[in-house]
Amino acid sequence: MTSAISVKAVDGPGQPVRTPALDELYRGFERELLVPLWTEIGDLMPDSPRPAALPHVWRWQNLLELARRSGELVPVGRGGERRAIALANPGLGGAPFVTPTLWAAIQYLNPREDAPVHRHTQHAFRFVIEGEGVWTVVDGDPVAMRRGDFLLTPGWRFHGHHNRSDTPMAWLDGLDIPFSHYIGSTFFELGPDAVDDHSTPGRSRAERLWAHPGLRPVSQTSPTTSSPIAAYRWEHTDAALADQLALAAEGHPGVVEPGHAAVRFTNPTTGGDVMPTIRAEMHRLAAGTRTATRREVGSAVWQVFDGTGSVRVGDREWPVHRGDVVAVPSWVPLTIVADGGLDLFRFADTPIFERLHADRAEILP
Amino acid sequence: MTSAISVKAVDGPGQPVRTPALDELYRGFERELLVPLWTEIGDLMPDSPRPAALPHVWRWQNLLELARRSGELVPVGRGGERRAIALANPGLGGAPFVTPTLWAAIQYLNPREDAPVHRHTQHAFRFVIEGEGVWTVVDGDPVAMRRGDFLLTPGWRFHGHHNRSDTPMAWLDGLDIPFSHYIGSTFFELGPDAVDDHSTPGRSRAERLWAHPGLRPVSQTSPTTSSPIAAYRWEHTDAALADQLALAAEGHPGVVEPGHAAVRFTNPTTGGDVMPTIRAEMHRLAAGTRTATRREVGSAVWQVFDGTGSVRVGDREWPVHRGDVVAVPSWVPLTIVADGGLDLFRFADTPIFERLHADRAEILP
Amino acid sequence: MTSAISVKAVDGPGQPVRTPALDELYRGFERELLVPLWTEIGDLMPDSPRPAALPHVWRWQNLLELARRSGELVPVGRGGERRAIALANPGLGGAPFVTPTLWAAIQYLNPREDAPVHRHTQHAFRFVIEGEGVWTVVDGDPVAMRRGDFLLTPGWRFHGHHNRSDTPMAWLDGLDIPFSHYIGSTFFELGPDAVDDHSTPGRSRAERLWAHPGLRPVSQTSPTTSSPIAAYRWEHTDAALADQLALAAEGHPGVVEPGHAAVRFTNPTTGGDVMPTIRAEMHRLAAGTRTATRREVGSAVWQVFDGTGSVRVGDREWPVHRGDVVAVPSWVPLTIVADGGLDLFRFADTPIFERLHADRAEILP
Amino acid sequence: MTSAISVKAVDGPGQPVRTPALDELYRGFERELLVPLWTEIGDLMPDSPRPAALPHVWRWQNLLELARRSGELVPVGRGGERRAIALANPGLGGAPFVTPTLWAAIQYLNPREDAPVHRHTQHAFRFVIEGEGVWTVVDGDPVAMRRGDFLLTPGWRFHGHHNRSDTPMAWLDGLDIPFSHYIGSTFFELGPDAVDDHSTPGRSRAERLWAHPGLRPVSQTSPTTSSPIAAYRWEHTDAALADQLALAAEGHPGVVEPGHAAVRFTNPTTGGDVMPTIRAEMHRLAAGTRTATRREVGSAVWQVFDGTGSVRVGDREWPVHRGDVVAVPSWVPLTIVADGGLDLFRFADTPIFERLHADRAEILP
Repeated sequence: MTSAISVKAVDGPGQPVRTPALDELYRGFERELLVPLWTEIGDLMPDSPRPAALPHVWRWQNLLELARRSGELVPVGRGGERRAIALANPGLGGAPFVTPTLWAAIQYLNPREDAPVHRHTQHAFRFVIEGEGVWTVVDGDPVAMRRGDFLLTPGWRFHGHHNRSDTPMAWLDGLDIPFSHYIGSTFFELGPDAVDDHSTPGRSRAERLWAHPGLRPVSQTSPTTSSPIAAYRWEHTDAALADQLALAAEGHPGVVEPGHAAVRFTNPTTGGDVMPTIRAEMHRLAAGTRTATRREVGSAVWQVFDGTGSVRVGDREWPVHRGDVVAVPSWVPLTIVADGGLDLFRFADTPIFERLHADRAEILP
Repeated sequence: MTSAISVKAVDGPGQPVRTPALDELYRGFERELLVPLWTEIGDLMPDSPRPAALPHVWRWQNLLELARRSGELVPVGRGGERRAIALANPGLGGAPFVTPTLWAAIQYLNPREDAPVHRHTQHAFRFVIEGEGVWTVVDGDPVAMRRGDFLLTPGWRFHGHHNRSDTPMAWLDGLDIPFSHYIGSTFFELGPDAVDDHSTPGRSRAERLWAHPGLRPVSQTSPTTSSPIAAYRWEHTDAALADQLALAAEGHPGVVEPGHAAVRFTNPTTGGDVMPTIRAEMHRLAAGTRTATRREVGSAVWQVFDGTGSVRVGDREWPVHRGDVVAVPSWVPLTIVADGGLDLFRFADTPIFERLHADRAEILP
Repeated sequence: MTSAISVKAVDGPGQPVRTPALDELYRGFERELLVPLWTEIGDLMPDSPRPAALPHVWRWQNLLELARRSGELVPVGRGGERRAIALANPGLGGAPFVTPTLWAAIQYLNPREDAPVHRHTQHAFRFVIEGEGVWTVVDGDPVAMRRGDFLLTPGWRFHGHHNRSDTPMAWLDGLDIPFSHYIGSTFFELGPDAVDDHSTPGRSRAERLWAHPGLRPVSQTSPTTSSPIAAYRWEHTDAALADQLALAAEGHPGVVEPGHAAVRFTNPTTGGDVMPTIRAEMHRLAAGTRTATRREVGSAVWQVFDGTGSVRVGDREWPVHRGDVVAVPSWVPLTIVADGGLDLFRFADTPIFERLHADRAEILP
Repeated sequence: MTSAISVKAVDGPGQPVRTPALDELYRGFERELLVPLWTEIGDLMPDSPRPAALPHVWRWQNLLELARRSGELVPVGRGGERRAIALANPGLGGAPFVTPTLWAAIQYLNPREDAPVHRHTQHAFRFVIEGEGVWTVVDGDPVAMRRGDFLLTPGWRFHGHHNRSDTPMAWLDGLDIPFSHYIGSTFFELGPDAVDDHSTPGRSRAERLWAHPGLRPVSQTSPTTSSPIAAYRWEHTDAALADQLALAAEGHPGVVEPGHAAVRFTNPTTGGDVMPTIRAEMHRLAAGTRTATRREVGSAVWQVFDGTGSVRVGDREWPVHRGDVVAVPSWVPLTIVADGGLDLFRFADTPIFERLHADRAEILP
């Protein structure tokens, strides 16, 4: 569908005098599908990022309630593919995008349900706030999902989910759907309608091969685009965070700042981020900790894993509880305060910026 | 500004039955700023890229005529910053973007004019179809602009232009403004209102230091984000293209395909693309050559430098002449046919895709 | 000390006729410190590597007995620095080098002894065949040494050892001393005469920060030259090897070849080898397994960790038992056969070859 | 051939008391092919590099005279392969190695002679002090050799030379033969006995494809291990050096230090060194310039291309003239003084050190 071009004269320094001749020129621009820089430069080239996306908090209890109701009304199967409900940033015109680049959704699977198999170039992960009983089957490898686990479905891997339990399960999905959509790199392919392996192993084959600290199989020694670790288990994440705080208490380095431990989920074949477009981390704030106020180019999403506290994003401030999801747009300052201990999962589009040398960050006083 | 969310029930396989309960659920989504995947998946996750941008050709003579008229009516100075008129892809809702990621504009400078100094994180280049007499001054280094030259202004370098001659000059600007705008990484800073060095050297200092084949200064041996070569001169580009066709005529490899020579402008400190987000190339088709039909993920812009021929982009076909500019959206097949010899400049957003491992290309039968 | 040059006439195809004039020419070469290629090319440029080093096996019981006796006669302290006894390859002219590039030694520490603190550019590791009670203190971080552990001392870190126990302890040291010596890159610096931290933590601080699968501290996100993991614990290595064999038994990939599991110790910040010059791995052969016969450019050292079997290196074959050390020179074919289960530690200089694009390997029929 | 091990008791701090028991221990070491660290540490682990190689200067006139005489007495053909005469460092026991890692030789070809075709994994280059008339044919591509040219024969390319002229020609060969020999990575293969293409093009095909500043063929966009530029022509090198000195005279950066211009020959596909083990550079000192005194880990060889001056290497100082070759061992300080203008070619093993993170350099006061 072809869009009409509209060139609007504006006033201000450096602008041409409004005359009939100028108006005629602007109509000529429109006819030839042209738009002058001088009327648009303020919006296009601001002094610093002015994201359309807005800071916002979604409440887990509300998400969960609507997801449960969807479980009653909405089937999971071919066509709709997933019972996933996306967080739509209020600044983005109604698009189902939590930030301009990132997708966040609550996904819900009823007891004994399967989500059908497909694959797509978008990179995906799951993060589990609560519950268990679902296995996500990635390229034929069943991966158990349990509270605190961070699970990967890198681009172009066939995957489906199955719930073998008697209880429903909900979790957070994160993807780069908006970014892929924007740059026009999306491919999608259907697999079988049902998951073909309903087994329920405690550990995936990917973990058995790859989730050993500092060890890799000699049979597989090339770097891979995304991490081969299908599941980062909570027990490891929790231990690493506890170790950092304990080291700090003993006077040793390791934490990000006083009272603030953090680990990044990484690709063991490169040491870099788990997937080319998504960074994922877990943060732990000791009781009473207030983080430095920090902003960075690129957008992020935080989900409270445990504890309570408050987040300040730009001019807005919210108390947060388990499961609440916070959108942090590009270059908007963020401060987090823990009441008691506060654990937070975070994902962000930073790898896009780092790989394109467009990253910037600063601590504000 | 906060956007209202609107969830529309759709029909089709995998969709829930439309009932009042479903309607109530969807209203609940809207209240909580949520959008289900199952109603949106067709648009968001198509089988292959379905870009909003459309193939289009802008005629150089029309661009030039409007630019000249702008030269009479529109000042160049602080505020508007540049007398640049952007090509607005008819599929992109009136935005001044030639493709979703790329900016292309004709810029015009009257005799004895200066364009004021500023810098921005967006990466920019100039390509000169015709004329001379302007120097672009990049971080204090005056760079002559002449027909066939490809000139760089990588991100965050102060730059202005000055026309010391008695004739106006027009050229093509290429930038990653749309991509920077989308990802929210834009910084901008004013420099002096006038260029402070009006000298007119034949070669820039950057060329004297860097534009020697296979040689680099021992004083500067780290890789740089963007190429340090300020100007890629036509005499070198022309010679390299002629050499490729001559090698092919002698039976040796080098050309892209029979009758089709091509060189990529590269960063001599890495061998990679000149800037993190932009690839630039010059192509030469021998008389009568028809290229293979090829498509790739990511968008490109071609400008005819010399000769005549025709381009077929998807279902559209256009004859093209010197200076005409063609937009090629992501994954749309492109074929070019040369009448006599045909030289074309090309720029594309491919580095974004390659660095994020999202590149794909194919030759169609 | 200046060496005299001696040019010897040789016979064979392409050689000049021996005449008094030729003799005079060769004497002229000697006076001017010259040697012709044509008399040396056979030795210098053979069709394939002809290493001076020889295959050899050292028996752990013999090493241990001599180390114990050294414990009675030889002090550990400033000057001698370490009670380490190096394996001297019988082909290398009496130099204390297990291969041309690698150093292997048995090191021995008596109860309550300290080895003094120093640092050097040579990269070092320890591998523990048996025993415990020693802590190696690397840049102030005490690292427990226990059977099966692989411990790192990358170049230029201050380190000493202390034995807090009532029993002596012996282990295998591996370094790149011969390579460093050859290329002339050696720096060495003394630290305190005694270790200043005699604490005996179960886990080092480095492990607490880094030895979590796929996780890294957000406070430290740059790649490091060598691995920050101070100790790769046997429990993890053992589990990874067991997992590989179990996966194979279930029909899944992961092992190097049937019955042969292997893990490589890696730098979690890069996914590459633990140190720039040294590769280290642990191999497990199921009972009765015979490996393929393989050779590769570069030299390796194997130590039996557990079990019995036999190794064939070139034309030589030896039965091997716990602790025995095998030198495998460049390009010499190696086959290993397990009696019962057989666990082997391996280290090699392969990173040197890979980083210089000089690596080659082949499986022989 | 098996070497006997000899363990010699030494005196000094940290050494054991000399007793019959110690003597018996040392004899036990010898029987088991062991050598203690404590008697060897002084030699093996000095405070800073103590290379066996010595500073030395070879006089071009002497080299040339002996090469001419070899032209009369020594054939060039299968078996001897090349009429190349290597510089043998006086500290290296008579081996034909200019430094522990590098080979330098004068090669000489009579009128109408061919040097037969072969290939080897060793990396090679030619540098031409004077003369012309020889073409080196690399993988079938004839490359003219002329004064000032730097020509590459990366590892494993078939190559021969032919002299189509009526005058003999001599040049400098540089290779990594000693390093390859030491690490045991040498492969060698014969090609045809005579060069099969005796054509004499002014530019090689490799240059036509690759020697354009900042341009690469779109048909070949992967990084290559070694540079694809077969010849770096003097006209480009000379212009780049002249530009640096002119920039400095105008007050702009670019030179290494006042009066000292230098360019590095690089691989245009990476921006790095031309070959994995060899760095090559051209230096120009303005009349009267004295360089800073500098030392670096790794060894280098300099050849005077034009002019006169003096070199100080460690404690030795020599006046030097056109063609003279200077060996600079690892970590030995070097100062160069130009009488009139002085142009010098330099090659070094630095890439080995940089790729293994073992590089160090310092300016001495």
